[in-house]
Amino acid sequence: MEIKAYAAQSATSALAPTTVPRREVGDNDVAIDILHCGVCHSDLHAARGEWPGMRYPLVPGHEIVGRVSAVGAGVTKHEVGDIVGVGCMVDSCRHCHPCEEDLEQYCEGPHGFKQTYNGWLDGSGDNSYGGYSAGVTVDQHFVLKISHQAGDLAAVAPLLCAGITTWSPLRHWNAGPGKKVGVVGIGGLGHMGIKLAHALGAHVVAFTTSPSKIADARALGADELVVSRNPEEMAAHASSFDFILNTVAAPHNLDAFLTLLKREGTMTMVGVPENPHPSPSVANLIFKRRHLAGSLIGGIAETQEMLDFCAEHGITADIEPIAMQDIETAFERMQKSDVKYRFVIDMATL
Amino acid sequence: MEIKAYAAQSATSALAPTTVPRREVGDNDVAIDILHCGVCHSDLHAARGEWPGMRYPLVPGHEIVGRVSAVGAGVTKHEVGDIVGVGCMVDSCRHCHPCEEDLEQYCEGPHGFKQTYNGWLDGSGDNSYGGYSAGVTVDQHFVLKISHQAGDLAAVAPLLCAGITTWSPLRHWNAGPGKKVGVVGIGGLGHMGIKLAHALGAHVVAFTTSPSKIADARALGADELVVSRNPEEMAAHASSFDFILNTVAAPHNLDAFLTLLKREGTMTMVGVPENPHPSPSVANLIFKRRHLAGSLIGGIAETQEMLDFCAEHGITADIEPIAMQDIETAFERMQKSDVKYRFVIDMATL
Repeated sequence: MEIKAYAAQSATSALAPTTVPRREVGDNDVAIDILHCGVCHSDLHAARGEWPGMRYPLVPGHEIVGRVSAVGAGVTKHEVGDIVGVGCMVDSCRHCHPCEEDLEQYCEGPHGFKQTYNGWLDGSGDNSYGGYSAGVTVDQHFVLKISHQAGDLAAVAPLLCAGITTWSPLRHWNAGPGKKVGVVGIGGLGHMGIKLAHALGAHVVAFTTSPSKIADARALGADELVVSRNPEEMAAHASSFDFILNTVAAPHNLDAFLTLLKREGTMTMVGVPENPHPSPSVANLIFKRRHLAGSLIGGIAETQEMLDFCAEHGITADIEPIAMQDIETAFERMQKSDVKYRFVIDMATL
Repeated sequence: MEIKAYAAQSATSALAPTTVPRREVGDNDVAIDILHCGVCHSDLHAARGEWPGMRYPLVPGHEIVGRVSAVGAGVTKHEVGDIVGVGCMVDSCRHCHPCEEDLEQYCEGPHGFKQTYNGWLDGSGDNSYGGYSAGVTVDQHFVLKISHQAGDLAAVAPLLCAGITTWSPLRHWNAGPGKKVGVVGIGGLGHMGIKLAHALGAHVVAFTTSPSKIADARALGADELVVSRNPEEMAAHASSFDFILNTVAAPHNLDAFLTLLKREGTMTMVGVPENPHPSPSVANLIFKRRHLAGSLIGGIAETQEMLDFCAEHGITADIEPIAMQDIETAFERMQKSDVKYRFVIDMATL
């Protein structure tokens, strides 16, 4: 079956209409008509071949919300007509320790997990095509239930990547009441980090380089905003954070934030920089037994937990809806951080 | 009271005989006749002014074993004639959270902890003079009981810094039965790390750049030795360690070791490099939720725990005894890592 999609045919070509094959609906498969697809910075990196191992045609998109159009005979989790989501993963080995612990993102099978686009993490085997398309067929295990109100569905899409990528570390490092939590960067990831940390009950301090974002940060749920270029503002928070979620992938001075951690505090990175950050000071780790860590998206069970939490608390992303045809303009604006805070494609425009 | 000591009179002068003042024995003080003092690499950094804030005359030495010569009226922990030890700390604020949690090394009082030499950590207030001297007077709280056999006493001295600096992280990160623990570097710290991790029941892999150290590593208790310059040997241990204790202060490639950690494993640094390590890859942290951390010496309670454990298990450092007059030669050899594994000054030679 061939379906409509937008694809990059090479690292140097703009996204353009095409068709891609979708597999037959197998016993455990859920076929989904895509309604909305968020535009993640990863989509741009992948389409432009800025990461190694990209395969073309490349159909980006891993923040998918849609309606179930068909299910296989063995499907028990979903029914035709259900509103569902698909995030960054569509398969994994299902048998390794991480998979058995519901942490498929750390799958230690021979190929890692299978990405929603560009196939298995190790680049082996058959390719996969993402959510900039009319439909997708996915094993039921990797399909999430969405219980948000219908009006919110476009704004739910970014939860599937930006939401879970911030939720997983916030939960793993126990962000909640009584904890002082920093969120570095107020973009696609950071704005969700602020909303989720606030909803989890933490005292949230947002860090930005732009004083203009103060009102925005408060609206998102930050209790305080710190302009990270202002040394006096930073010094006022020295050694006071239980946890800092750092969403900034651009190389920057990690020590400026590590020194804000309490004894035994952790700063967790969720973005992979194209070039390394300046080397952090080991002394800043040693003198307060601090930790620098990383975290990758989140498992399927915790993604469901996050979606349910968000539906219950009325949390969605702040988005700008776009038509499929405007994707290249959206990419250009995203590169300039000119978006509040996520573009979401209305797939009816495909 | 003036007592005999060896001091550097400036950053450019060799250590030479002098006298330094010792305070009167206060109510809570223990006066100690020093028998042995280990030679830590910190002593050389401090004497040569390679760290900021050094004050002269500078009497190094924070691996002290001696005999109690007098006690104040309020001393209950120690008696005249007891064999005791003093490590890197001789005071702290005693009231902050870390002090109340027996983690005086992370004291958050106004000056941090008081170092055994060079005074308070922040360089304020009165100076202190270390163990390259005939005696020292220390508050009883910072004096450790030593229950090793008399013949081992010189080899006990390095436990007061090299021992506790490796013991504290091994315990904090649960090195023990069923755990695969790496120790990077086989020097003063590393050789203690191997002995202690082995005695705690972990499977111990020692890392060195010198294939010549295989027999030594096994004698110290390592189950395996890996030559870290051999990529094939390193690759065989990929993603397999629960914990890695990295004792190497010289700048080196941290990623080579971070990639050997299991999911959620931790590598802990205990040495402060003069120049930064090459910046570690954030991706190596993200893709397995790994941690890079630091650890500073250890608290007084855990130092006592370590000393008691070592006495019970017959553990001491491997040392080369030297006379006080040979300290400059020892410094030169130490700079070339030409010592197995710690010089210890016989203070009878002062």
